[in-house]
Amino acid sequence: MKAEIITIGDEILIGQIIDTNSAFISKELNNIGVSVYQITSVQDDKAHILEAFQAAEKNVDIVIITGGLGPTKDDITKTTLAEYFDDTLEYDQAVLENIKYLWKNFVKQPLLQVNIDQSLVLSKATSLMNKSGSAPGMWLEKNNTIFISLPGVPYEMKGLMNDEVLPRISKKFKRPFILHKTLLTYGLGESVIADRIKEWESALPESIKLAYLPNLGRVRLRLSSKGFDKSVVTHEVEDQVATLIPLISDIFVGFEEQSSIEQIIGNQLTKLGKTFAVAESCTGGKIAENITAYSGASSYFKGGLVAYAMDSKTDILKVDPKLIELHSVVSNQVAESMAQNVKKLFNSDYGLATTGNAGPSKGDSEAEIGTVCIAIATPYGVFSEQFNFGKQRLRVVQKAVTMAFTLLQKEIFKKC
Amino acid sequence: MKAEIITIGDEILIGQIIDTNSAFISKELNNIGVSVYQITSVQDDKAHILEAFQAAEKNVDIVIITGGLGPTKDDITKTTLAEYFDDTLEYDQAVLENIKYLWKNFVKQPLLQVNIDQSLVLSKATSLMNKSGSAPGMWLEKNNTIFISLPGVPYEMKGLMNDEVLPRISKKFKRPFILHKTLLTYGLGESVIADRIKEWESALPESIKLAYLPNLGRVRLRLSSKGFDKSVVTHEVEDQVATLIPLISDIFVGFEEQSSIEQIIGNQLTKLGKTFAVAESCTGGKIAENITAYSGASSYFKGGLVAYAMDSKTDILKVDPKLIELHSVVSNQVAESMAQNVKKLFNSDYGLATTGNAGPSKGDSEAEIGTVCIAIATPYGVFSEQFNFGKQRLRVVQKAVTMAFTLLQKEIFKKC
Repeated sequence: MKAEIITIGDEILIGQIIDTNSAFISKELNNIGVSVYQITSVQDDKAHILEAFQAAEKNVDIVIITGGLGPTKDDITKTTLAEYFDDTLEYDQAVLENIKYLWKNFVKQPLLQVNIDQSLVLSKATSLMNKSGSAPGMWLEKNNTIFISLPGVPYEMKGLMNDEVLPRISKKFKRPFILHKTLLTYGLGESVIADRIKEWESALPESIKLAYLPNLGRVRLRLSSKGFDKSVVTHEVEDQVATLIPLISDIFVGFEEQSSIEQIIGNQLTKLGKTFAVAESCTGGKIAENITAYSGASSYFKGGLVAYAMDSKTDILKVDPKLIELHSVVSNQVAESMAQNVKKLFNSDYGLATTGNAGPSKGDSEAEIGTVCIAIATPYGVFSEQFNFGKQRLRVVQKAVTMAFTLLQKEIFKKC
Repeated sequence: MKAEIITIGDEILIGQIIDTNSAFISKELNNIGVSVYQITSVQDDKAHILEAFQAAEKNVDIVIITGGLGPTKDDITKTTLAEYFDDTLEYDQAVLENIKYLWKNFVKQPLLQVNIDQSLVLSKATSLMNKSGSAPGMWLEKNNTIFISLPGVPYEMKGLMNDEVLPRISKKFKRPFILHKTLLTYGLGESVIADRIKEWESALPESIKLAYLPNLGRVRLRLSSKGFDKSVVTHEVEDQVATLIPLISDIFVGFEEQSSIEQIIGNQLTKLGKTFAVAESCTGGKIAENITAYSGASSYFKGGLVAYAMDSKTDILKVDPKLIELHSVVSNQVAESMAQNVKKLFNSDYGLATTGNAGPSKGDSEAEIGTVCIAIATPYGVFSEQFNFGKQRLRVVQKAVTMAFTLLQKEIFKKC
């Protein structure tokens, strides 16, 4: 069972947008046992799209196409599909009713001929109803390959995948079980980890594939396997994980599929019945944003202060101006004061604080660009560490956020 | 001048990571006049990678390959390239010196044989020095097609693109000038815009391509053209933009290439000598984070409060508990009080506030999921609006952030 994803749109090929659709589709297909053989992005060009269809048809069982279904002239996927299938376009009444319903209740703008024409589908296609937009999906078959056309707007594509595409594929095909298990580690580089676990790795059965995924201080180790007997696949992988963990117990923090570090922190705080708050300078709200991306955060996250201007640190967070003068705004002392005071301000059990210079210019502080101090106030005291995360602004911020979560996590697990 | 990008790595095909490298590379290539014909993502599989190389060689002048250059067993790009070029691997002394330097000064972990082996390159290749990591880039030529191999770690890839790849391509090839000009609009759907500008669109010269890019309440209109005479290309596009803008003056807010809405707001506030602060409930720090992503924000952004827990709204922001009881926490009245009080707390000229229910459950409020109230306190008063942004948590948050910026932008431009 192999699939190819073809994403259509100049905006991808000129780098105007990042293709997030393919990652979503790949993950969902893997979950139901379909491997993705290739992802191909092509321009809004008929000849090139036809070539991509042909190449995909030779290689895979399922082709999922996204994009090019809008109402404007630059959208050519539907007419190109009609040419490929030697077919014509016909109005689909159910789709048209859906468009009229959406326009009346949500769009509240005049229904134009181009909107009505969105209900045109290939006569050989099964229409897939798009509850969130005017472009229907289509399901077509040719020489044992299924072609599925979906809109490129992410939430419309996701709705169609969940409501129509995944259930139909699950029903039509006998599929193997694919398992990925990813161990999150912090603190060592991939080559050192590989060296440490080389005997374990050499003894891995052929059926299990190991991958190292390094990124900004974290290395993820992914074990992948597949087979038609779910319990066999699961046991084989679990057995290997059980022998791996003791080898990396000092750097292992959890499994990615179950939880991100934000969720691990949230679960642990919930278990402890504790809360935290954050005072952010250089991370500018990104710690709060990552935490609140998960629903339920309100039970352990009291809130945050983005103390961006100097006077918000002294006036609201009540950091002593003399402390800033003495040690500079980017210092362990100021970070610790911020952490203690935000804990007090929000009446939380833990207080997290960042202060640093993300660059590109030196700003309020004389600290070298990339310097970040991170402090944690706990029910038992306060501590801080200073780091240098390099010269690229967004990377400095991301590394600071990752490190802040790492320190907080270590702290809340220490007290168990 | 056409290029293909081949990204190698199972993590992309199973949806574990989103491929952001391709967008960066595409944009940079466009900037120097190289069009990207196709982006192809393939697994860590030798036979498939070889096939992708062959297909690309037929179609394009430049093939840029990312990924699979790490020190661990799952990294096979280098040996696969050696097979494709019928070549052997040899140690590159300059690369080895660089690795030793990085290990001594930054990595501070033992230098293992696998790290030393990172300095192996194809004998036919020109090594491209990677200042941020151990995997060198390689530049190879075959039958008039250039193959460039780069590491998959984004900041290493970016360093190599900027330091080595782009300058070398620019020197080697005569390239056309590619121009994209993107107009940002807010407030109308793509089909209504298309209908309104259809006569203008029909009269566009063949050389200019128009694309509509709708996303969450914004529609971007992109005009693209290319040619060897930069001033001709620029004038043609500018002339069309000049006739287009009067047709959409009520919804046009700026050009994407010059500025995002966050930058437009920042520039205007700087011009006015005004500042703002934000109190975020349902947006959880995302407004602050988007603003502080730009350096220089400290001159107009005082800071933010993420008032996530109910008591942070009353204790820190001093919203009257009776107001919350009377109108509920998700109400225009509470939003307005938050905006006024955050303006006062941070001593800023404008105060922005969000309160809402992003779902998936109802949480602290009885408001329907997706309900968001946004308020702005200005030097002249306070106002608010209520919206419903649907049922998907992350989409609700993103739409609220976009709308908050849209309202703030309208407000600060109104007073000019």
